[in-house]
Amino acid sequence: MDYNELLKKYKLSGNEREHRKNLIDSLIRKISAVINDMSLNASPVLVGSSARGTSLKKSDIDIFIQFSSEYDKKQLESYGLDIGFKVIGDGVAKYAEHPYVSGFVDNIKVDIVPCYRMKIGERTRSSVDRTPLHTEFLNSVMNDEERDQAIILKLFLKRIGVYGSELRTEGFSGYVSELCIYYHKTFENFLRFVRESRGQLVIGPKFSEFDSPIILMDPVDSKRNAASAVSKKSLSILRIASSLYLENPEPDFIDLENVSNIEREILDRKTYLLLLELKRPDLIDDILYPQIELMKRNLASFAKREDFTLMNTFSSANEKTIQVLLELQTGSLPGVKIHVGPPADNPNAVKFYEKYKSDPLVLRGPYVKNDRIYVELKRDETDFKIILKSQLKNINFGHNLNFLKEKIRIYTSREKVLSSMVYHDFISVQEPPDLSSRKNLEKK
Amino acid sequence: MDYNELLKKYKLSGNEREHRKNLIDSLIRKISAVINDMSLNASPVLVGSSARGTSLKKSDIDIFIQFSSEYDKKQLESYGLDIGFKVIGDGVAKYAEHPYVSGFVDNIKVDIVPCYRMKIGERTRSSVDRTPLHTEFLNSVMNDEERDQAIILKLFLKRIGVYGSELRTEGFSGYVSELCIYYHKTFENFLRFVRESRGQLVIGPKFSEFDSPIILMDPVDSKRNAASAVSKKSLSILRIASSLYLENPEPDFIDLENVSNIEREILDRKTYLLLLELKRPDLIDDILYPQIELMKRNLASFAKREDFTLMNTFSSANEKTIQVLLELQTGSLPGVKIHVGPPADNPNAVKFYEKYKSDPLVLRGPYVKNDRIYVELKRDETDFKIILKSQLKNINFGHNLNFLKEKIRIYTSREKVLSSMVYHDFISVQEPPDLSSRKNLEKK
Repeated sequence: MDYNELLKKYKLSGNEREHRKNLIDSLIRKISAVINDMSLNASPVLVGSSARGTSLKKSDIDIFIQFSSEYDKKQLESYGLDIGFKVIGDGVAKYAEHPYVSGFVDNIKVDIVPCYRMKIGERTRSSVDRTPLHTEFLNSVMNDEERDQAIILKLFLKRIGVYGSELRTEGFSGYVSELCIYYHKTFENFLRFVRESRGQLVIGPKFSEFDSPIILMDPVDSKRNAASAVSKKSLSILRIASSLYLENPEPDFIDLENVSNIEREILDRKTYLLLLELKRPDLIDDILYPQIELMKRNLASFAKREDFTLMNTFSSANEKTIQVLLELQTGSLPGVKIHVGPPADNPNAVKFYEKYKSDPLVLRGPYVKNDRIYVELKRDETDFKIILKSQLKNINFGHNLNFLKEKIRIYTSREKVLSSMVYHDFISVQEPPDLSSRKNLEKK
Repeated sequence: MDYNELLKKYKLSGNEREHRKNLIDSLIRKISAVINDMSLNASPVLVGSSARGTSLKKSDIDIFIQFSSEYDKKQLESYGLDIGFKVIGDGVAKYAEHPYVSGFVDNIKVDIVPCYRMKIGERTRSSVDRTPLHTEFLNSVMNDEERDQAIILKLFLKRIGVYGSELRTEGFSGYVSELCIYYHKTFENFLRFVRESRGQLVIGPKFSEFDSPIILMDPVDSKRNAASAVSKKSLSILRIASSLYLENPEPDFIDLENVSNIEREILDRKTYLLLLELKRPDLIDDILYPQIELMKRNLASFAKREDFTLMNTFSSANEKTIQVLLELQTGSLPGVKIHVGPPADNPNAVKFYEKYKSDPLVLRGPYVKNDRIYVELKRDETDFKIILKSQLKNINFGHNLNFLKEKIRIYTSREKVLSSMVYHDFISVQEPPDLSSRKNLEKK
């Protein structure tokens, strides 16, 4: 299979490389000058795909500023932001483990991120400290052919929706993608390896026990699983896509521009759809997404505990709004609830009997079935939306979303649900390679 | 606790015993005369509670005719019926393992049952052959005080709905009740023993491993579990009732006439109720009831397989009709069904993907969640009654009921369901001691 067409389309051309190199040089010079002016013990270093020769036309430029360990975290953060804003005047502060500055220069996204200088084997003070070591390692072991193979793999991973280690995607970081090529040499070799694998996927040496779906030793920190961010779902998508691609290795499968984004609107699923909408708090995706997952999980448990049959939960977030969609088999319950008591050979069975024998809420029973005692209780409220509203204060959405609960909007009207962003995401199903129902292609 | 009042009320008085003795003598004489006329090697023997001095005012008289082993089963059956009808002119033939004759003489129910003569240790040819040995055994070990205690126990078991080993009740036979007293001497001792027990209940020596809820060695056949008919449910009812009674040993708890049969009709359970009605085939209860259980079990599996949430199944039968009631959370399903595919590391996941990727029945997917692939399929029919009718031919009701399926009547109308015999049984809940929702008090 000849991947040259694809590389020509997505890899930086000679001219583009030249232009990018000039831009990077000028940024590094500016940063150094600012550091000098401030008399700081720090130095800029280019990291990420631009530093490793694996960038795509649309890739970001990531520059880290390595600070001496004499500075404490507060100093690192404030100096880091200072430098960033002096270099990218209209940048914005973003918050991960540290705050950093992000903005556009010549239409290319640039991130300027402070970290501590560290050597292999040293303890990190912040998780980003080892990023420059990753660049050093990969540059010392990969040749140009492997860099091209890594680009193909990244395109493939993007195409199937699993590129990116952020919590929104839970997929493969650029570094992990390149390590996959480092261990398996070519894109197709790696796919064959994935296709034949079962259960936990171990890439490279099996160095330790982890629960993660993928284990991949970080060569610059032999105790760290570099692929810990990859979810079961992302690995599963990669597995199925690998089989499909190897059966019929068409470049169209990889080409990002050939995604046919067909939306099949389902006119009537005859299910009960409920939409929760809240204002997005000022948080980066990696902080926000786990909170939305927690919110969904706890809403699902709540529905189950109240005896509703949950079919799907789905969420979507943009800059302003978070939407969560719950799909239930039905939105209203019977007027009676079967309440299971203890086994008859447990002394509590008698207490249960005595508790319920003249309870006015008991519609039937206490009676015995098999080896247990039961009652059937009257259920006062049977409508999901009403039950949810009355219980909302008791459902944990996590501390970043809980305080927004008072202003949450809950909709069940057909028009509102069908026109919502989350319903649109939920219902859209991409043709072949994106097996996930998530749409994060072309995100960058 | 003084049980004399209770005994006075339910035990045969001196006069009644006299009258019953005369009736029995005359029946035995008649049978012997018929046997003589027919020149058979056989002899009548009184069995059951009348023979053991433990009968209640309403108890049956059971007379067995022990045939010599020279006769084959066909002869035994035809001679047995012959003799029975000659003695009880207006009797009817009933069918258990053998046919036998049942009828009323002086307002007392009399059963005349053929069996083979056997001695302890001999192999039975029919399960009833050992019944005369049971009488012999109990008469040799029990005194009058224990007989009275056995009567109290039987009243108690009747009161809580677990007296009788027939499959309709799955409870304690008269013989088992008396063995309980034989091992524990008094009614209250036995209840205390039951109250303290956990798990499988072993009465008397632990002689062998059985799966049954109760193990009780039959003294006339040391390999037989005499209590194998008792269900988990009946044992559980006995357990809870024993605790309740011992806490507050009021004779009213036992007195059969103090059953307050309160029916709490539930005006609106807001559930989906479906009634199946079929003609009762000409079978005795012990044959019919397991078939009705099979029918209910298979209807329940069917509903579950079709994704309905079943809350209760209930059945009732009289001389003419069998009724089965199904209670579902809702009678109609959403228009979409989530279909779970194989795990992604199984090669079948790819086959699944290829099978469904352009199936017009797919409303959403294929998509990946966690480590599995899914699709959501359109569900053509969502109404339970219609689905049930179309699938009825594929649901096994057992060979005695299957042939009646064509004439089955299925109702969902509120009026029909609420007026049905089975709904009446289902909804009626007796106060304290009958913990079961079954009403078989005063059955005899």
